[in-house]
Amino acid sequence: MGKIIDGSTQLLGIVGDPIRQVRAPEVWSALFKANGFNAACIPLHVKPADLQAFVAGLKTIQNIVGLIVTIPHKPAAVHLCDALTTRAELVRSVNVMRREPDGRWTGDILDGFGFVQGLVGSGQRVAGRRALVVGSGGVGTAIAFAIAEAKAASVHVADIAKDRAADLASRLEAAGTPSGTSEAVAQGFDLVVNASPIGMKNEDPIAIDPAGLERGALAGDVVVHPPLTPWLSAAKQRGCHVQPGTVMMDNQLMAMRDFFRFPEGDYTPANVARVTAG
Amino acid sequence: MGKIIDGSTQLLGIVGDPIRQVRAPEVWSALFKANGFNAACIPLHVKPADLQAFVAGLKTIQNIVGLIVTIPHKPAAVHLCDALTTRAELVRSVNVMRREPDGRWTGDILDGFGFVQGLVGSGQRVAGRRALVVGSGGVGTAIAFAIAEAKAASVHVADIAKDRAADLASRLEAAGTPSGTSEAVAQGFDLVVNASPIGMKNEDPIAIDPAGLERGALAGDVVVHPPLTPWLSAAKQRGCHVQPGTVMMDNQLMAMRDFFRFPEGDYTPANVARVTAG
Repeated sequence: MGKIIDGSTQLLGIVGDPIRQVRAPEVWSALFKANGFNAACIPLHVKPADLQAFVAGLKTIQNIVGLIVTIPHKPAAVHLCDALTTRAELVRSVNVMRREPDGRWTGDILDGFGFVQGLVGSGQRVAGRRALVVGSGGVGTAIAFAIAEAKAASVHVADIAKDRAADLASRLEAAGTPSGTSEAVAQGFDLVVNASPIGMKNEDPIAIDPAGLERGALAGDVVVHPPLTPWLSAAKQRGCHVQPGTVMMDNQLMAMRDFFRFPEGDYTPANVARVTAG
Repeated sequence: MGKIIDGSTQLLGIVGDPIRQVRAPEVWSALFKANGFNAACIPLHVKPADLQAFVAGLKTIQNIVGLIVTIPHKPAAVHLCDALTTRAELVRSVNVMRREPDGRWTGDILDGFGFVQGLVGSGQRVAGRRALVVGSGGVGTAIAFAIAEAKAASVHVADIAKDRAADLASRLEAAGTPSGTSEAVAQGFDLVVNASPIGMKNEDPIAIDPAGLERGALAGDVVVHPPLTPWLSAAKQRGCHVQPGTVMMDNQLMAMRDFFRFPEGDYTPANVARVTAG
């Protein structure tokens, strides 16, 4: 049946609460094996009140390469890193932590980067666009700053929690990107993203009013199931390029490979599909 | 290639310094898979100065079932458990720690128990024997107390470190077993164990002088390679039942299965050989 783990295996953790639903252990462990890298991704179920002690303990493990951080730990983990990337500082959240050769830990946030990389990888241009991000929670914030980092002309924010939207808009402004709050209406924007959970359930209304959406606009969604949400479906009918949530996930995988400095190998979505199919 | 680990996988850690040489991750992970238990054994390389912070962090992980403790952490780990078995208290060392349903951790020492179980499983009787244990380090101490627990008539100790041997003898006495120090000579004993590393190297002298060893005596060794050390070879020639170090290891595996309360399955040495052969 072949060796699974041995004494030399390096570890990549993923911490969350709950943890049973995450796919990372299966996907990464299979990718490591397929790429001949003796490493495994392990699920780590930790409660919010325990995060600090958990990370302190984790930092003592010499054969751990890094940690993927998922819900609800991303904002708290930002305070447990020894160093942060600029975007992690701006977003105030980390979803990956890397053990440096000197034992210090660097945090980064790749949620938004994966979204932008998905567009760029499909030949789309982000720079210069007037963006609207609907949803100003963790993922929305990450995407908004990633779009800003990719030199969008402006990044507006819509949220039923108006205070939170206004706060994110002012942080984007402070970081040098023209911003403001908006309704969830596509009119006047040419990069429009649903970063809210609306669209996951059958009975959900459309997340963004497509009125005024132009043919050359880009439409994105963070919802993974269904792949084509009502919002993306409406955008597709209008001839827009649409990006489902899976694309953001897939591109984040490659960004993580780079961040964690894993050895060379095939970490493409096609290989993920192949190695997790058996 | 089949699933290796997923979000529901339970974890069994093994902590040591170094860790690369341990076989537990490979053996246990293969056994879990063969027995249909969604669990994996992971190597954890931790330095002595970090053990306390490491264990504090480990205790926050909800999906960890336990920890195997190996060199050099066994004596220190005794202070990091919330509860100890009587024998762990006596030996002042733990090699297994179990997470209880309430989140507390219980420590036990199974090194010596595996040795005794090996004899019992081969139809040998330990109760009533006059035992000699050569080597009063960690493993020797564990074996001496396990033989005492199995109701040997007496347990004597030999070591070139005479102070350490005397200390162990007095601890055995204090626990209610007749004891004392001795030379490494079989004469007068009918259960004689080498718990020192002597015999691992080709040029090593015989660990115990077989003079006076009687046919009905039991001879044991903790050395795993070679399987038949000069000491065991001499004992075998005299018609004694001999137990190589591998037997102690194999029986400890089953004792660990019981201690950690793993689901029913085949954890016999034969199955270990089968599942790790591929």
